[in-house]
Amino acid sequence: MSASPPSHSDLSRKSAAEVRQAIRHDGYARHTAGLAAGKLQCNLAILPAGDVLDFLRFCQRNPKPCPVVGISDTGDAFMPTLGHDIDIRTDVPRYRIFRDGQLADEVTNIKALWRDDLVTVALGCSFTFENALIANGIPVRHIERDQTVPMFKSSIPLVPAGRFAGEMVVTMRPVAKDRVQDAYRISRAFPQAHGAPMGHGDPAQFGIADLMKPEWGDPVEVLPGEVPVYWACGVTPQNVLLAANLPLCITHAPGHMLIADVAEDAETTILKPT
Amino acid sequence: MSASPPSHSDLSRKSAAEVRQAIRHDGYARHTAGLAAGKLQCNLAILPAGDVLDFLRFCQRNPKPCPVVGISDTGDAFMPTLGHDIDIRTDVPRYRIFRDGQLADEVTNIKALWRDDLVTVALGCSFTFENALIANGIPVRHIERDQTVPMFKSSIPLVPAGRFAGEMVVTMRPVAKDRVQDAYRISRAFPQAHGAPMGHGDPAQFGIADLMKPEWGDPVEVLPGEVPVYWACGVTPQNVLLAANLPLCITHAPGHMLIADVAEDAETTILKPT
Repeated sequence: MSASPPSHSDLSRKSAAEVRQAIRHDGYARHTAGLAAGKLQCNLAILPAGDVLDFLRFCQRNPKPCPVVGISDTGDAFMPTLGHDIDIRTDVPRYRIFRDGQLADEVTNIKALWRDDLVTVALGCSFTFENALIANGIPVRHIERDQTVPMFKSSIPLVPAGRFAGEMVVTMRPVAKDRVQDAYRISRAFPQAHGAPMGHGDPAQFGIADLMKPEWGDPVEVLPGEVPVYWACGVTPQNVLLAANLPLCITHAPGHMLIADVAEDAETTILKPT
Repeated sequence: MSASPPSHSDLSRKSAAEVRQAIRHDGYARHTAGLAAGKLQCNLAILPAGDVLDFLRFCQRNPKPCPVVGISDTGDAFMPTLGHDIDIRTDVPRYRIFRDGQLADEVTNIKALWRDDLVTVALGCSFTFENALIANGIPVRHIERDQTVPMFKSSIPLVPAGRFAGEMVVTMRPVAKDRVQDAYRISRAFPQAHGAPMGHGDPAQFGIADLMKPEWGDPVEVLPGEVPVYWACGVTPQNVLLAANLPLCITHAPGHMLIADVAEDAETTILKPT
């Protein structure tokens, strides 16, 4: 490529397909928050086929942290139910390569790593319900402050499947007391994106010692008149994959998501055939 | 067993667990419609493990006819995420055994057929949204008449996965013109049970020649002031499994469902661990 990569703001009014092209061909390798407004963004887990059945069982048993929105054919790098011409080897800004449970590399494409036995599992992400909260007049502070949502390893046990097991990671967003029930109702309408909160109030009920010390992301204060509300988090499957010590596993880098052509408020995440 | 089996009305006020015990121990082998009110009932597909990944892909790509609500471990006859002590070999009133795409037998338990490589996939069923329609004042005529819902092979293409492919089977329920949008809204809230209708009005749009000649079930008249409304049907995966000519596949017999302990209006179909 000859020109320098486009910036996030260069892409702010582009379609999902145009953003994917900018990632594939023009070197865009930054985060995808706010891009292709209204389209579903996805967490990714790319695994050898032999591990996929147990991983899908794990996701089915833990649908709030792990809502499956797409599964590729074995060895097929394309995801036609999520979008036109999505090449999973090139259309995500940044990937993480894990070997034997250790982060081995972070790359901007996985063309050299692709194998005939790999399967991509795409999972919904919190952008979807955050957009719905904001559209319904419930502000999201970490977005207003251009920070990363605070994430906590909770004591909520996951239902195991094969070698996949552990505790749920949750995110925290402060919500005004009189809007907490609205936040439940609004986010429950998005089962493909973590659904209703896991709970609200005292962080100790979920084994969280200090809300100002998240394991990942930035601390966000809970102000007077607000209640901390906890949602299941898409970092959960990443953690569980790490702990499973798979010989090879590829994920997106946090915040650097796959952008689908599916509308984030569609009833299903399956693109109608054209 | 010494006594004669209980009747449907003997079981009408029993819990899901009690109904399953009556099936397992007391010879109850009739349909489950109306039993264990408020609990999720499930279609079943029991397959050799080697076919399951493609079948799960097929279900994920066709979520309206094939909403997955439970997946067993390989060789494990129990389904703990759906209910306590559910033994899939004995707790369903009637099973159909298919060999090489042909109905080979209909039996009341599958203890002798169980194998270490079998996997059970449970799928949601229309009882759930029918109950919600009735609770919201939208009558369901085939239930009022104690008939079976009319089912039609439609022209709606399914998204294929491996050897699983075909067209969607749809059910038809007449709805008063001024309640059609309510029927969409009410049933859309149950993605685990086929969700919103596929459409309404002219049957020709779905390749249906004559509403009074369903492929399965009983014909139901559409009266003046009513509109025929079409929902995705759980017979779809049964048909697709048949067409795939698997060496072995076991399903429930139509109407003779697995009754789970999960509430049919729960946000997820996963029973909280106790």
